[in-house]
Amino acid sequence: MLNFELTREYIDNLTELIEAKNESAISELMEELHPADIAEIYEELSLDEAKFIYFMMDDDTAADVLTELEENDRKKFLDSLPSDVIAKRFIDNMDSDDAADVLGELDDERQQEVLSHIDDVSTAGDIADLLAYDEDTAGGLMAKELIKVKENWGVPTCLRSMRRQAEEIDEVYYVYVVDSDGILKGTLSLKKMLLSASDVLVKDIYNSDVISVKVDVDAEDVSNIMDKYDLVALPVTDSIGRLVGRITIDDVVDVIREEAEKDYQLASGIVEDVEASDSVWQHTRARIPWLLIGMAGGILASWVAFGHLDLIDKFPIVSFFMPLIAAMGGNVGMQSSAIVVQSLASGAVDLETNWLKLLKELGLALLNASILSTLIFAYSYLFNDEMALTITLGISMFSVVFFASLFGTFVPLLLNKLKIDPAVATGPFITTVNDIMGMFLYLSIGNEVFKMLA
Amino acid sequence: MLNFELTREYIDNLTELIEAKNESAISELMEELHPADIAEIYEELSLDEAKFIYFMMDDDTAADVLTELEENDRKKFLDSLPSDVIAKRFIDNMDSDDAADVLGELDDERQQEVLSHIDDVSTAGDIADLLAYDEDTAGGLMAKELIKVKENWGVPTCLRSMRRQAEEIDEVYYVYVVDSDGILKGTLSLKKMLLSASDVLVKDIYNSDVISVKVDVDAEDVSNIMDKYDLVALPVTDSIGRLVGRITIDDVVDVIREEAEKDYQLASGIVEDVEASDSVWQHTRARIPWLLIGMAGGILASWVAFGHLDLIDKFPIVSFFMPLIAAMGGNVGMQSSAIVVQSLASGAVDLETNWLKLLKELGLALLNASILSTLIFAYSYLFNDEMALTITLGISMFSVVFFASLFGTFVPLLLNKLKIDPAVATGPFITTVNDIMGMFLYLSIGNEVFKMLA
Repeated sequence: MLNFELTREYIDNLTELIEAKNESAISELMEELHPADIAEIYEELSLDEAKFIYFMMDDDTAADVLTELEENDRKKFLDSLPSDVIAKRFIDNMDSDDAADVLGELDDERQQEVLSHIDDVSTAGDIADLLAYDEDTAGGLMAKELIKVKENWGVPTCLRSMRRQAEEIDEVYYVYVVDSDGILKGTLSLKKMLLSASDVLVKDIYNSDVISVKVDVDAEDVSNIMDKYDLVALPVTDSIGRLVGRITIDDVVDVIREEAEKDYQLASGIVEDVEASDSVWQHTRARIPWLLIGMAGGILASWVAFGHLDLIDKFPIVSFFMPLIAAMGGNVGMQSSAIVVQSLASGAVDLETNWLKLLKELGLALLNASILSTLIFAYSYLFNDEMALTITLGISMFSVVFFASLFGTFVPLLLNKLKIDPAVATGPFITTVNDIMGMFLYLSIGNEVFKMLA
Repeated sequence: MLNFELTREYIDNLTELIEAKNESAISELMEELHPADIAEIYEELSLDEAKFIYFMMDDDTAADVLTELEENDRKKFLDSLPSDVIAKRFIDNMDSDDAADVLGELDDERQQEVLSHIDDVSTAGDIADLLAYDEDTAGGLMAKELIKVKENWGVPTCLRSMRRQAEEIDEVYYVYVVDSDGILKGTLSLKKMLLSASDVLVKDIYNSDVISVKVDVDAEDVSNIMDKYDLVALPVTDSIGRLVGRITIDDVVDVIREEAEKDYQLASGIVEDVEASDSVWQHTRARIPWLLIGMAGGILASWVAFGHLDLIDKFPIVSFFMPLIAAMGGNVGMQSSAIVVQSLASGAVDLETNWLKLLKELGLALLNASILSTLIFAYSYLFNDEMALTITLGISMFSVVFFASLFGTFVPLLLNKLKIDPAVATGPFITTVNDIMGMFLYLSIGNEVFKMLA
């Protein structure tokens, strides 16, 4: 199957067929589509059109499509359905982790209602268990479905049990080995199963070097571990080491992408997670806070200028370079903080202490500050007649770049130490503080230099 | 095994043992460590210390550790070794994709030398094939190792062949089905193998709904496809559909992380891919270009101010708000472009046309511009006596926010249309242009308003 390409013509064609209630033509048109593609189609349809298609799909596909939908659309869809339909047609056909994610989006009362309509008590119990975990932890990412065998089983017992367990699972990556108390001992790779003779015991062939996490480990740490060790699935244990679930790589890919996008958005001054397709109102709510902070910063900067009214009044040319100095402070701070935030987020082990990092940034700051202040000094010397201005620009460019580098490095490290996500600091806070500090340094230095020379 | 935590004490202890050449104590200390952990340890050692440890490791582990090293460290290490050692001890023990990646970092002559020392012609041939692909394509990501069966085989033939093939592969996720010409027909899931009887033919049980990519597909598209369809492995075909390799999710996780980090760094004005641990000189080279562009922008802005010398000379207070207006242009442009860049990078299908996106951004621009200009107008009305300034601030804030929003949306869309990576535009270009445009709008509007009112 080739990768499906959604077009406007396809949607127009589909909506016409829905209006004509031509079920057989619709089935033909949508045959062989992947649930992820159907979810994309759904996003382009009205609620009624989507419902029409939904109730033509088999249960498994319908459940998969629901999982793939964007949260807003899923919520709209579920709100329009009775609890027993949600339970029987959707939740009952999902993996436990997806079921818990979907249910977690409903309010508590509705969750209970839906769960009460699930006939199989163990399925309902699994979902209820998962709902108890924070969604940003290993417990919130894991699914209950996994294949486990006991260490003292022989391979034939093992294979029989695996066949039975495999019926309920989409894909099998690892077979987990536990002892009689359910404590995780290791893994049995499927390759080993293919290659080994039938008369050996599990305990003789399993691999005890298994990497696992406890249920309360942070989602970002989970993604760093799976990335570092190139894992496709990661077993999750409770506090005494009993195997309670497994996390698969596809869930972690979403975590990695979202974390990276979030850091980028925060650095760009966007405080809520928004998609291009969200409403104008959602975008405004996400963008306005930083713009207000930036505006407050600009107003503060105007006060700083007001404090140096005499200088600007006598030498208006001093004011021409205020935007340059303020912007350079912001730019330099942004660069320094981006590097620190990324290095903290990647979880890369790094024995450089914070002091060493600051020392290195100090070297970098001195180098950049020297280059930039020399250039602005040379420019001003050639094109401005006012020597006091040239000296002021040179000294203050050096000070601003130097200060902004160190500040941009120090603040994220400090926030990290205080257990605050350092990404919140990169955009708004550092740029604004550096803008103001830049104005202050420039005008104070100018005041002294002009007093002496002009 | 618990997650290994690298400490300064561990390294100190290890270097002492290396100095004492105490091999048995070192083996004990490093026993059961994952190659990814050993790679982290290596980064903290000198070249000679690292070599000492390297030649104590078994061939498979040594090869895995080499793959996990950072590029710079790997290069230093390989440069110090003769070609036959690289071939026999490292390349020969790697998966073909890792071998090609490592060899691709050496110069052409060295590549040929190393390849000539690999005894198995088919292994050397596989690597040479992979070296021919651009590293940012499906061909550059794929490995040659995979398990394939013919569609007209019976299950017993199949199992025999799979056992033989599986010996050379770390993990088996899918078994691929091909016809007698080697054309990819579908997959046989391992779960199906566990569940099916032994007298059926492959063609009766395989799944023909297989998603595949051609060798020349862009790496970013590969990662979007694997993410969207939640795939653990993706088969790669040549131009006529013959199966030539497979891409595994762990390689794609790296692509996703790197793409997201690159966009973030570009937006922060960092033009080369740098890590916190890189040298001061590498960081300077990555950061200086944007700082120079920003400085040029600031100088241009000072010219704009110089063109309005009369106004600033008569009313110095006008200059106090120049940094505010310039900064707001930069901030708004940064936000708008970040959203567009992310939405383009995620490859999310989106039937909103570019015109529709611009229209939506128009609404957003109008809303933000109204809110911010009202606020600055109110502030200035309350705290400044000069009515002409208050009106100038209100009108120019509206114009700047409005212009910067549209510009920040339009430029990335245009670049994308021209097949240029829109991420290059977010930081440097848009912020600088908006800074200058902001100054120009503010001072031009001020000129007119003050002429009329003051």
